[in-house]
Amino acid sequence: MDENSFVKYLKSEFPFTDGTGIGDDTSIIKIENGFQLITKDILIEDVHFDLSYFTPEEIAARALAVNLSDIAAMGGKPEYFFLGIGFPENFKGEKLDRFFKELKKGCEKWNIKLAGGDMSSSPDKFFLSITMVGKSLNPIRRDGAKAGDLIGISRVTGESSLGMELLKLGVNIPYYSGMHKVPEPEIVSGVIFSEFVNSMIDISDGLVIDLGRIMDSSGKCARIKYEKIPVTDEMKTICGKYGLEETELVLAGGEDFSLLFTVSPEKEMEMRKTGVKYHIIGDVIDGEGVCVKHQGKLIEPKRKGFDHFE
Amino acid sequence: MDENSFVKYLKSEFPFTDGTGIGDDTSIIKIENGFQLITKDILIEDVHFDLSYFTPEEIAARALAVNLSDIAAMGGKPEYFFLGIGFPENFKGEKLDRFFKELKKGCEKWNIKLAGGDMSSSPDKFFLSITMVGKSLNPIRRDGAKAGDLIGISRVTGESSLGMELLKLGVNIPYYSGMHKVPEPEIVSGVIFSEFVNSMIDISDGLVIDLGRIMDSSGKCARIKYEKIPVTDEMKTICGKYGLEETELVLAGGEDFSLLFTVSPEKEMEMRKTGVKYHIIGDVIDGEGVCVKHQGKLIEPKRKGFDHFE
Repeated sequence: MDENSFVKYLKSEFPFTDGTGIGDDTSIIKIENGFQLITKDILIEDVHFDLSYFTPEEIAARALAVNLSDIAAMGGKPEYFFLGIGFPENFKGEKLDRFFKELKKGCEKWNIKLAGGDMSSSPDKFFLSITMVGKSLNPIRRDGAKAGDLIGISRVTGESSLGMELLKLGVNIPYYSGMHKVPEPEIVSGVIFSEFVNSMIDISDGLVIDLGRIMDSSGKCARIKYEKIPVTDEMKTICGKYGLEETELVLAGGEDFSLLFTVSPEKEMEMRKTGVKYHIIGDVIDGEGVCVKHQGKLIEPKRKGFDHFE
Repeated sequence: MDENSFVKYLKSEFPFTDGTGIGDDTSIIKIENGFQLITKDILIEDVHFDLSYFTPEEIAARALAVNLSDIAAMGGKPEYFFLGIGFPENFKGEKLDRFFKELKKGCEKWNIKLAGGDMSSSPDKFFLSITMVGKSLNPIRRDGAKAGDLIGISRVTGESSLGMELLKLGVNIPYYSGMHKVPEPEIVSGVIFSEFVNSMIDISDGLVIDLGRIMDSSGKCARIKYEKIPVTDEMKTICGKYGLEETELVLAGGEDFSLLFTVSPEKEMEMRKTGVKYHIIGDVIDGEGVCVKHQGKLIEPKRKGFDHFE
């Protein structure tokens, strides 16, 4: 069973009737004024970060970023969060102190508050879990894509994966390492997009796999023109230099936390006027799956994206 | 720095103005009708459970129980929860399936729903984090104890620790193993208590340490009469047989998840009429700390309780 199938199994076994439960970036519960959004992301040493090149500050910033990005993907505003942390012996003292100092900076930067949590020693690996609470007047789900919609992406994708691949090769180019370690959640853009789009998700596991999740939830098919996806010349050059495959990084590289959305052509015209940045990379038709063409020729990434069940 | 000092440090560094944040069993946020309660507890293999004698079902039930108990300790009703789970290779497939089947049973038993979460492979240890959301019209905090209050406990304490010590000795007495593995959260009693008591906590780290938390938050002193604490004859016998110290288990043994509260003598008279079960074990005076006397003689447990920072 792969991760998507498992999520489907959970959705059917654990029906949620108080709002939207499993299967979107956050849960959605109706509250007095609008909707409460709650998301929970876990980070495990040697799965999501490597302590040999992540500082305590970077782990704290990253943990906040991935959860904030889930709120952004709904078009919501984050409010407060709960922290669960298991730290090995060698993380006590100075490192834990640095972790919390950075967490405090993050609270100030994003105007969010730590509301509680739990901590414990851990036998060997460091892990943490954040539950982030936010709100929205009009949360954007994954299942709203319509035939005829345009597909948009907020910014470049593949830079986080490039940063990680370079670090694995022992190459530290600060810009790309930074994109991998501490991605920037798109809270402001997310709120603006939410006034226009029909569906939205953040790219955590890869462009194709995450776009596939929108299509799967909406019962539609995505057509992507590869040449429309923003890729910088610098990224192309670096890929060439280190023998990395650009299309793999762009299509299957996860953890960019760019926002991916579908919007009707009419609403897209209006959205353009706000000045918010994004790129149109394809459109939605009836059918299923995600199809990517480069200069009219079908291409398929070797790896679809990251799957914890495979 | 010990755990209590660290919590104080976090409370001062991360002020929470939307309600009650760090430092109680759950956070408390005002909502339309009453208060929303949120708690997050983590469970780590080889810290909170041992896979050599915990089944996947027991881990699921235990993870729910400890979080439900935090809601119970506020006098709240649980509603839904978020699950974060990191599973090692050997837990995939059948064991993960059994875990989720039991989780579903728990949802039915406690009338709660799984609302979302995150899952990931984990390099070696199994860990999980649950964030439970509940509500209450009148949540009971730790800081409300008053001089003159009586101190009550909902049921026996020390049985979970006895179960764990026996398992460590290779002795499996199902009743005590069960108390250790899957404690019963006191949701119903908690709601009834909440109509009368001034302060409440659940015993997660040990009677003395958790009562100390109430006293510390309230700026008061607790006087306990050891002989008033309910201890069964069977427990005494088993302690004698296996050379375990009863007072240590009762005073410092954690994870019973009995409820501990303080209540004015007048309200206690009213509460008694409801028929809810509890035992009065001492009273509250001005001052600080927790003092335990046995037949008038001061006793002090060697270990105060479980502290992840020591």
